This record gives sequence, C-alpha cells and structure tokens, in this order.
Amino acid sequence: MELNVGEWRHATASILSIGDELVRGQTLDTNSKWLADRLSLAGIEVVEHATVDDDERRIARALERLGAATDLIVVTGGLGPTADDLTRFSLARVLSGGPDADRASLATDADSLEQLKTWFAGRGKPIPEANAVQALCPAGATMLANDNGTAPGLHAAIDRLACDVFCLPGPPRELQPMFARYIEPTLRGAGRGVSGVRLLLTFGLGESAVADPIGPLMDRDRPDRGLPLIGTTASRGVVTCRIRHTATDETTLRDALDHAEDELRAILGPAVFDRRDPAKGDDIDVTLALPATLIDLCRDAGARLVTAESCSAGLLASMIADVPGASDVLSAGWLTYANEAKTSMLGVPADTIKAHGAVSSEVARAMASGALERGCDLDPAVRFAAAITGIAGPGGGTEEKPVGTVWIAVADRVTGEIDPRRFLFKGNRLAVREWSARAAMGMVRLALLGENMELLGEVERLGAKAFT
Amino acid sequence: MELNVGEWRHATASILSIGDELVRGQTLDTNSKWLADRLSLAGIEVVEHATVDDDERRIARALERLGAATDLIVVTGGLGPTADDLTRFSLARVLSGGPDADRASLATDADSLEQLKTWFAGRGKPIPEANAVQALCPAGATMLANDNGTAPGLHAAIDRLACDVFCLPGPPRELQPMFARYIEPTLRGAGRGVSGVRLLLTFGLGESAVADPIGPLMDRDRPDRGLPLIGTTASRGVVTCRIRHTATDETTLRDALDHAEDELRAILGPAVFDRRDPAKGDDIDVTLALPATLIDLCRDAGARLVTAESCSAGLLASMIADVPGASDVLSAGWLTYANEAKTSMLGVPADTIKAHGAVSSEVARAMASGALERGCDLDPAVRFAAAITGIAGPGGGTEEKPVGTVWIAVADRVTGEIDPRRFLFKGNRLAVREWSARAAMGMVRLALLGENMELLGEVERLGAKAFT
Repeated sequence: MELNVGEWRHATASILSIGDELVRGQTLDTNSKWLADRLSLAGIEVVEHATVDDDERRIARALERLGAATDLIVVTGGLGPTADDLTRFSLARVLSGGPDADRASLATDADSLEQLKTWFAGRGKPIPEANAVQALCPAGATMLANDNGTAPGLHAAIDRLACDVFCLPGPPRELQPMFARYIEPTLRGAGRGVSGVRLLLTFGLGESAVADPIGPLMDRDRPDRGLPLIGTTASRGVVTCRIRHTATDETTLRDALDHAEDELRAILGPAVFDRRDPAKGDDIDVTLALPATLIDLCRDAGARLVTAESCSAGLLASMIADVPGASDVLSAGWLTYANEAKTSMLGVPADTIKAHGAVSSEVARAMASGALERGCDLDPAVRFAAAITGIAGPGGGTEEKPVGTVWIAVADRVTGEIDPRRFLFKGNRLAVREWSARAAMGMVRLALLGENMELLGEVERLGAKAFT
Repeated sequence: MELNVGEWRHATASILSIGDELVRGQTLDTNSKWLADRLSLAGIEVVEHATVDDDERRIARALERLGAATDLIVVTGGLGPTADDLTRFSLARVLSGGPDADRASLATDADSLEQLKTWFAGRGKPIPEANAVQALCPAGATMLANDNGTAPGLHAAIDRLACDVFCLPGPPRELQPMFARYIEPTLRGAGRGVSGVRLLLTFGLGESAVADPIGPLMDRDRPDRGLPLIGTTASRGVVTCRIRHTATDETTLRDALDHAEDELRAILGPAVFDRRDPAKGDDIDVTLALPATLIDLCRDAGARLVTAESCSAGLLASMIADVPGASDVLSAGWLTYANEAKTSMLGVPADTIKAHGAVSSEVARAMASGALERGCDLDPAVRFAAAITGIAGPGGGTEEKPVGTVWIAVADRVTGEIDPRRFLFKGNRLAVREWSARAAMGMVRLALLGENMELLGEVERLGAKAFT
C-alpha cells in the first residue's frame, strides 16, 4: 500500500497517547516507549510524548501543538467504537483548519466497513451498530487496515503543519504490526543515505563495565568522522550495545556495522550472547533473550537441564519456560524452600546444613549434585543442574550473610565440575530473586561454552548497580 | 514542614517527566502512572502527562504551558548532578517570568548543602564538586529534603500561573516517599469537605462480571445524590472496586464508605479477598495482593503448602515466594515438566498419562495427590498441594485440547477432597501460565474458606477477557 506521505523529512517526531485510563493512572502506557524506541532506531529524533484524556477538543489541541513542533506524530488509542473514542473526530477538526474549527466532514470508507463486516462474520455475528463508526474516515485522511482487531488506523499528511499524523489502535498486538507495516517503511529520517542499527546483547558486565573498556568507540563525534555511533542501554539484566550508522549505500552500511561489531566483540568477548538486526525484523525486546539463547545452545548440544531452587522458588525454571520450545531442554526441577525439603528431596545432608547454614557453598554444591543425580535417573540426556540458595530479604540477613547473599552452583555431568559462586545482589526481594535466576542462566551458558566463570564476578556489581 | 502552597484549589493536575532516556524510549516511565493514580485517588483530575528531553528551554516551555492549563504540576527527573540535569534551571526561567526569560537567580541552600555533605560523609567520601549544583535553589522556590538519594526536590507556587510546581527526583524509591511526605498532605482537591477512597479487591470474576451485578451502584450521578462514586479497574488478574466519596466530616465519610462496602460485599461475596484504605497508608499496588492474602490465610490456619507444576514451571511457587514471609507457608514444590518427571517425582502412573494425556483431570489429580503425600512426609503441617498441568502454547494444542487448556487440582489433607477444574485461558504463553498460577491460588483460598469453587468458573472468561 502506497501512502501519500508529506514532502518533508521526518527529522523530529512526537507521540500522543489518548485515554482516560492512561491519564488517570489506571493503566500503564507501554506503547509510547515501544514507539519511541522504534522511531529512534530509525534515526528520528523523538522530542515529546504527551498523554491526554478522552476529550475531543483537548486531543485536537494536542495534535495541533505537536504538529506545529514536529514532522511526525504517532497517535495511539481512541479508535474504538464507543462514545469516548474521539481520535477520528479530533483529527477531522485539525484537518479542517485547527483544533477549534468545525470538524472536516467524515464519510464511511467502503473497504473498512467491508473489513469490519468480515471480522464480525468470522465470529458468527452481524456488525454491531456502534462499530460502524470505526469505518468513518475524515476528509483528507486514509484508512489503515488492522488485521488483529476492529479498529482501522488513520494517516493524514497535514500540509498546513508540515506534519504526518498516524493514528493507531491502543492494544500492543494491533499497534505493533501496524507500525511495522505502515509507518516504518515510510519513515524518512533527517540524514542522507541509508541508515541501519545493529544490537549486541551482553550479560555479566554492568553497564559501566561494558562502556569503560569500549571507551573511545562511544565518542559522540564518530558520525562526523564517518564512523558508526555506539551507545549502551540496560534492561532486565541485559546490557545492549547499539551500533547506529548512516552510509551512502547498503554495502557500505553493512561493512561499517560488521566492522564495529567485530571491534566490540574483540573487547567484550563471551559477554556478548546474542545479536539483533531490527531492520531485518529481529525483535528488540530483550526480556526473553537470555533464556532463549540458553535454550538454543542446550538444544544444539543435546544437553538437558534440571533446577534446584530455594530462595528463587521456581523463578529460574519459570524464566526458562517463558520461551516457546523450553520443553526441548527443561526436564524437571525441585523447589526446596524448607531445609527438610533440601534434605529429603535432594539428599542434602542435614549435617551440612547445620554446619554451614542453608546459604552456603556446601549446600549449593550438594543441591546441584543431588539434582543432577536425580535428573540423570529421569532422563540420561540431562547434563546440567543449576542450584540456587540465598537470602532474598527483607528479613533473614546477618552481618556475615547480609540480605542479597546468594550461592549458585552448576553441576555438569560431562566435565564433572561443580563450581559454586557467591553473589551479593542489591535491591528488593524480587530483584534479588531475578538476579539469582539470571546469574544461574549465565553460569550454565558459560559452562556449556567452556568459558571462564570469572566473567560473572561482575554480576554482583551489576545487580548492585540497578539499585543505587 | 509547612509549605507555602498557593491559595488556589487543586482541581486539575499535570505530570511532566524529564529525560532523554524516556523520550527516546530506552526507559519505561512508570512514575507518571503511579503519580496519576495517587493524584486521582486524592480527588484531583489529572488532565495531561508530558515527557520531554533534557533541554532547558523545552522543559521551561512545557512548565509554562502546563502551568497555565492546570493548578498543579508534578515534575520528575532532571535533578541529578550532571550537565544534562536542567530541571532547576528551567524552573528558574519560569519563576522569573516565562520560558524564554533569563533565569531567576539561583543560590546555594545551606541546609541542602549540609545534607549532601552528610550523605557523602556517611559513605566515607567528600562531596564531589559536581554535586554542589544539587543544593542550588531558584529564587522563589523551596528545597524538599530527600532521605533516599542525593537530589533534593523543589516546590514553587507560581502566582502568575496560579499553579503549584513540585519537582521530584526520578528514581521511584526516592520519588514515592517524597510524594507522600510533601505533596499528598498539601493537596486540596476541587471538592468541599473531606474526601476518601476505599478499594475492594476481587478475584475470580471478570471485570464485566463484577460490574454487571453491581450495575446501579456504578451510576455516575451518585455523587449528585450524596452517594459514593464506584468504579472498577482490572490489573494482574485482580478486579478492584474503587469507592470514592466526599462528605462534610470524617464520620459521615467513613459511614458512607462502610455502607457502600457492605452493599458491594453482599453482591460479590467471596470474590472479595482484600480491602485497602489508601488514606491510611495502605499500598494500592495489587501485584502481590492475591499471594499475600493466601499466605495470611494459610498462616492463620497453620496450613502449609506444596506445589506440583508442569506448564507453569515454577511460576505459582515463585508468585507466592514474591511475598515476604512466604517461608511461613511454602514448604516445597515439584517442577515436573517432562512426563517422566511426573511419574518418577510424583508417582503419576505412566498408564494414566498414556490413557488420558498429560493435560487431563486424572493427571492433575494424581499430581496433587502425589505432591500432598510427599509434602506431608516432609512436614506434617502441609495441608494443601496445588497441581497445574496445561498447554501454554504456542504449539501443542489440538482441537480437543486447544492452547490455553489447563487442569488445576488442589488436594486438601483435612477434607480429603481433590476437585480438578479445567480452564481455557486466552492469550500468549506467559498469560496462560500467569492465569494458571493465579487460578491455583484462588482455588487454595476457596478450599481454605470452604467456599464453592464454582466462583472460579469465571476465571476462564476473565483470562479470555484480558486479550480480546
């Protein structure tokens, strides 16, 4: 579909979210962050997000203001069938001359009405009367088909403001594919030539431990010297290096990105566990990146896993099971919260617990060893057992073993090694448990790769960093 | 501390978030939702959120615009010690006459500087030169001490705009206590008299299954008739009824809230599992509400728990362990992802799995029964075993057992009952697993209360609702 976008370049963009539930704080807006990230990756400078309630004139005034200030507005929400869905009417005002003007005329778009009828027919229902409003298109705008819901989107190039406006429905699973289909291909950032981004995902180093050694590679003036711009972001324990470049053609672009990737890998070594090419459709969400990598590695090696968890109480196994296909790798787990459970379920000697405490190298080792033995009895393909025992807080800490102290051991059937490591994670109960699960995944990965676990010495600092 | 707030009432408010990382989509803004929710609960109409980058003039223009439009602005971020922390300078411009005016003079606030020195001294360091800027106060503003970080906040009553501006640091654990300490006590909503809110938390009914039977109690014109306003919100599987009222005095207010609570409880019955009084400092975050209630009930009854999880893979146990004090109640769990694990770890007969499939009433029953037996061997205080087996997707579904089919069984040592229930949850893999864990918690709660599990027939619809 060819959209009639404006003649101007999209140097700057703004995002407008619409809805009473957002502005009153009943619902968390995650769309604005997602959109801003995608627009930024396309080389466009996002300068403002705004959120307003379901008020036709207030929406129109926000459109007018943002349209005057930026080259592109992405609007989310307010395209539903009910009386408080007003985005199309606000846009009609702005299209007819300004926020306080009368609405431009709206007419039923035949294709959109047909799609709505088909949508409801597929669910065995006639189209409800209220939904017909969703096929109304303001004069001067174009409808954008929505394959995942009833609300079509809208596009208008407003010459008066030199601004392209895209209106998308609020539900992320409708909005995200529509952004990729209609907006991304029409974006024309301020730069000349072709732009691209590559992401390198790391685990085990804190953000500053990534940034410090790559120092000069992060200089902000590199684009002036024809070199890719490199930055870091941290999310969910993963520090991502973003390599961004603009070149005269695709080949030069790819070569420059490849070269920068090589430079970073030479410095960061095995901390890099994944790479992403958003332009090729790779997901930029890092939530599942670490367990997904672990599952791929284990599947390729024919190595299955079992878990033995105390303070993390199932969170490690659950994070792994978040990834589709986890059953190829995850066999079973023991959740030994109480000390009696450690002894009875995993054969951790009661004397060991008594002598060293439940949070100790010795108990982590015995948990991993007991879990591996039981796992191999279940399934001879089990190679690794990961064991976690720690103090998640807020109570239970001592001077010797403060809250956040966690022992993790990975037993490897092939090498016979078990190397318990101590971490001191900062933050609240959930943070300590999440870092424990991530560190355990990191340890299994390094064991499988035969890499030195010393890399994870940094995890302690990393967990701390997130909360200071 | 007595703040010199403006003479005007706070009928409307806006929220301004500041930071490159927010506007570019590298960081998700959760503060705006939190603040909007708290302001709304205090009876103030939040009409806009805005997010701008670290640009002194852009921040000042946003302050001017929002100050002209609303009675109160809460600003977050930009109070740090670095060159891109510009909030205090932008405020100084607005205080001196407008966003494009020269800055009002800023002077070092002696108390704030002293606090900064003390903060760093407590960490064994002299105050870094850069941090001295954090003690700079624009003429006409007041500093707000921050007990949890280096950045003091700021307050200014801008008479020219008839607007109170509060600037708070961005980290939630600094912002939230400062909001409660400085802003909440000074808020004066538009209404007359005393305002209050009470929250009733429900589980097991979808939002419309809560709203439909209480129908007339949700009429929007009830305040005109002197009756509390009642609305519903849904988050994390919990549907919350919010009762809001303004009365002439505290006693009348409490009586009206009590009466509305009684009316709702009479209709909603055991679906109500908790109540909150935000004005009395109760937490309004419902994330941990369901497991926290379960733990309190079990602790009071001396009933401990074990879990047996297949598709949820530890998520049920992990959700329970999110709550401090979970170890009073949670003993152990078995994560039987593979079929061999169900047989070997919980004694589920291989024939039963073969005859009925791993996702079946019979297997759920055998898992719960096997887990209860093993749990009681560990610890005679174990009363309940909760077992989950299902198809989380995206693969593995059949016509007879589509993705989202989950069997859950709770075995009760005291009554001897095991009553497996089938659910069909909609949504992605994580959604199916989260709903499974929640439904299992709901079943244990109803078993403990001796209530009819039929209430949870609705959970199926509830899970579905979240994704249509």
